[in-house]
Amino acid sequence: MTQVETPVASRHRLVIVGAGFGGLVTVQNLRNVDIDVTLIDQRNHHLFQPLLYQVATSTLATSEIAWPIRHLLRKFKNVKTLLGTVDGVDTASKTVSTLDGEVIAYDTLVLATGARHAYFGHDDWEPYAPGLKTLEDATMIRRRILTAFEKAEREPDPAKRQELLTFVIIGGGPTGVEIAGTLADLSRDTLKGDFRVIDPATARVVLIEGGPRVLGAFNEDLSAYAQRALEKLGVIVHVGNPVTQCHADGVEFAGHSLRAKTIIWAAGVQASPAAKWLNAQADRAGRLAVNPDLTAPGHPEIFVIGDTATVANGDKGTVPGIAPAAKQQGAHVAKIIKARLAGDTATKPFRYRHSGDLATIGKRAAVTDFGFIKLKGYPAWWLWGLAHIYFLIGVRNRLAVALSWLWISFTGARSARLITQREAAEEDKPL
Amino acid sequence: MTQVETPVASRHRLVIVGAGFGGLVTVQNLRNVDIDVTLIDQRNHHLFQPLLYQVATSTLATSEIAWPIRHLLRKFKNVKTLLGTVDGVDTASKTVSTLDGEVIAYDTLVLATGARHAYFGHDDWEPYAPGLKTLEDATMIRRRILTAFEKAEREPDPAKRQELLTFVIIGGGPTGVEIAGTLADLSRDTLKGDFRVIDPATARVVLIEGGPRVLGAFNEDLSAYAQRALEKLGVIVHVGNPVTQCHADGVEFAGHSLRAKTIIWAAGVQASPAAKWLNAQADRAGRLAVNPDLTAPGHPEIFVIGDTATVANGDKGTVPGIAPAAKQQGAHVAKIIKARLAGDTATKPFRYRHSGDLATIGKRAAVTDFGFIKLKGYPAWWLWGLAHIYFLIGVRNRLAVALSWLWISFTGARSARLITQREAAEEDKPL
Repeated sequence: MTQVETPVASRHRLVIVGAGFGGLVTVQNLRNVDIDVTLIDQRNHHLFQPLLYQVATSTLATSEIAWPIRHLLRKFKNVKTLLGTVDGVDTASKTVSTLDGEVIAYDTLVLATGARHAYFGHDDWEPYAPGLKTLEDATMIRRRILTAFEKAEREPDPAKRQELLTFVIIGGGPTGVEIAGTLADLSRDTLKGDFRVIDPATARVVLIEGGPRVLGAFNEDLSAYAQRALEKLGVIVHVGNPVTQCHADGVEFAGHSLRAKTIIWAAGVQASPAAKWLNAQADRAGRLAVNPDLTAPGHPEIFVIGDTATVANGDKGTVPGIAPAAKQQGAHVAKIIKARLAGDTATKPFRYRHSGDLATIGKRAAVTDFGFIKLKGYPAWWLWGLAHIYFLIGVRNRLAVALSWLWISFTGARSARLITQREAAEEDKPL
Repeated sequence: MTQVETPVASRHRLVIVGAGFGGLVTVQNLRNVDIDVTLIDQRNHHLFQPLLYQVATSTLATSEIAWPIRHLLRKFKNVKTLLGTVDGVDTASKTVSTLDGEVIAYDTLVLATGARHAYFGHDDWEPYAPGLKTLEDATMIRRRILTAFEKAEREPDPAKRQELLTFVIIGGGPTGVEIAGTLADLSRDTLKGDFRVIDPATARVVLIEGGPRVLGAFNEDLSAYAQRALEKLGVIVHVGNPVTQCHADGVEFAGHSLRAKTIIWAAGVQASPAAKWLNAQADRAGRLAVNPDLTAPGHPEIFVIGDTATVANGDKGTVPGIAPAAKQQGAHVAKIIKARLAGDTATKPFRYRHSGDLATIGKRAAVTDFGFIKLKGYPAWWLWGLAHIYFLIGVRNRLAVALSWLWISFTGARSARLITQREAAEEDKPL
């Protein structure tokens, strides 16, 4: 299929690849600007990734954290949404191409293509230790977790039963901590009384962090609190030793061999291949080192933002790969584009403002670090909850998620405990 | 894995296969009865099938109409829930076997295994015209519907675009009518303003019924009203001619050839192979003709209920394959089991009480036929909605579904418009 473009040479053509936080905010900040915007994504939905772990742990439904992109942008009359997978950029002819063979011309290009989880030289670990980046990932991890309990209920051999009831989370950043805490709640609270042979509360949730402490981005006090809070929920926390091996029966680290049938990867991400499309230098995680104004080196007409880019952050290293950073970058790019359209081509360096770090630990505690104010425990959990509900899109979703959380908080019952989309290859038994 | 049974010869062993309406009600009516109940299902969830079409049409989330079976039964201490696929019954040794090689002994057996959609000699139509029985079916149909609009948006050829925007529903029973009405609403209301090239309202929704009228189970007046209401929503209704061919590009019927890229099958069901397990006579739809007390011929210890059985219904033919009928049968079986445990072995024939028929037509109209009271239009829609919310399980789900419906009713926005779980083989383009 080839693109049918009405050739209106006078209108500036902006193409944005990726409708995550960065891409979406770019578009939203260009509302009513007299240009043609094309937003391309390989999914039909924008995903609120900070809550994806709640889908993986049966807390929220997929549709509570994902919204059709074109519906979000229905009132942005200058925006055309395209469902398609970009597979290359031709900087000479200024076009992007899609897997379908479509070729789309741009005057300005924004690459906001995000990242996938990465295994840094151990791609063979992926089948045993899936990561969490898409709704499909979340549905699969949910299925594996719930299926492990089902299999344990039917397993007569106590050693095998213990393996089925051992859940290993690799990576002690916010995602790993949040999954571990929620899994502990799931096994001790939600599943209580549901089984006849096993006691789900005997499930072992093991969090393994290679660095010296969990939540390395937080200060040491909050980090220590988070570890204690996890341990109080029954999570076994190992720090200081990276995992050296993942296989069908468990993990190895620091000379330990831990048998576990469910392993979840929360240890690293790899940027999408945007740097390759531009033949540009990328760091170990595949991120393109952009200029201070977020343009690609040598290409003032191409911006690279979010998890696809690595951006210097003064003396604090680089800008972190979190939603608020991507949103700020999107807003910055929109501002530059508007300035350029108005004839102002002065370079405008991006300055990151770190608003804070948040992470929950189960359904009663959290840590929030806003620099001047640091909270932990139940007040932090409320702040975390309110902040996330505030950032959700749409009144209906806010109501639905608030209802889900209040329900779980009071009853412990999780509504989305569904084993669906079973793949034959993935399970070792025809359960 | 072999079953570890504690041999308590004194306790009666009841095995129920299938946790649909029939199986679940059987269990629920045996609460606190001093027997060992094992409930086996190949899914971990009970599914509220009457609302499955709402998942397929982006109205409800999967978790709003499905609940973990073992959670529903957590307080039934005499019940053990087993996730497994039964593949045979040995009536001589009184055992059922599962795909995993598990063998479970019974004293009384209830087969409530339900039905799948059937193509009656045209199984090759299934890839082109999927039916709607599981959450996976619903997710797939939702994906196909939403993807068709996405592809149409990118299709420059008007004829091909028209094919992408043509949706054919085969079968004019309640499911077909409800899908057609909701699809009309989706295209004319929900998607309004979301696209830049196509006008979703130009989508053609075509309902084809082989019999003389839609909703053949209702009286002629309501049936005629339903057809008019569908036509008012823009649905094209064809009655009187069955589809003679389904293929990748559309359907053929009555000499017509209709090009359509999305076809949905709502025309017939085939019972699961329970009759084969028992080497018993089955009708054309695979259903076993049971004795008046719902036992299998020659096996007073085996009950067959719900869509797996065909039950005579006085001079009104057979009991319809609907949820209330399965529930009544489950209650009847529980009553017989309790009587037998008390020493009363008199035959108790099942008598079906038809409570009524309901079907919605879009988000504003419905028809309800309770014999003495027949409603149509908006009042019927409210009655339909309240009835379904009442029959949903759990306060939380009732709240969530009510919120979804009210939201759609007032805003038209459907929250579950997600294209997920894409299968490479199923799509002809790498969208």
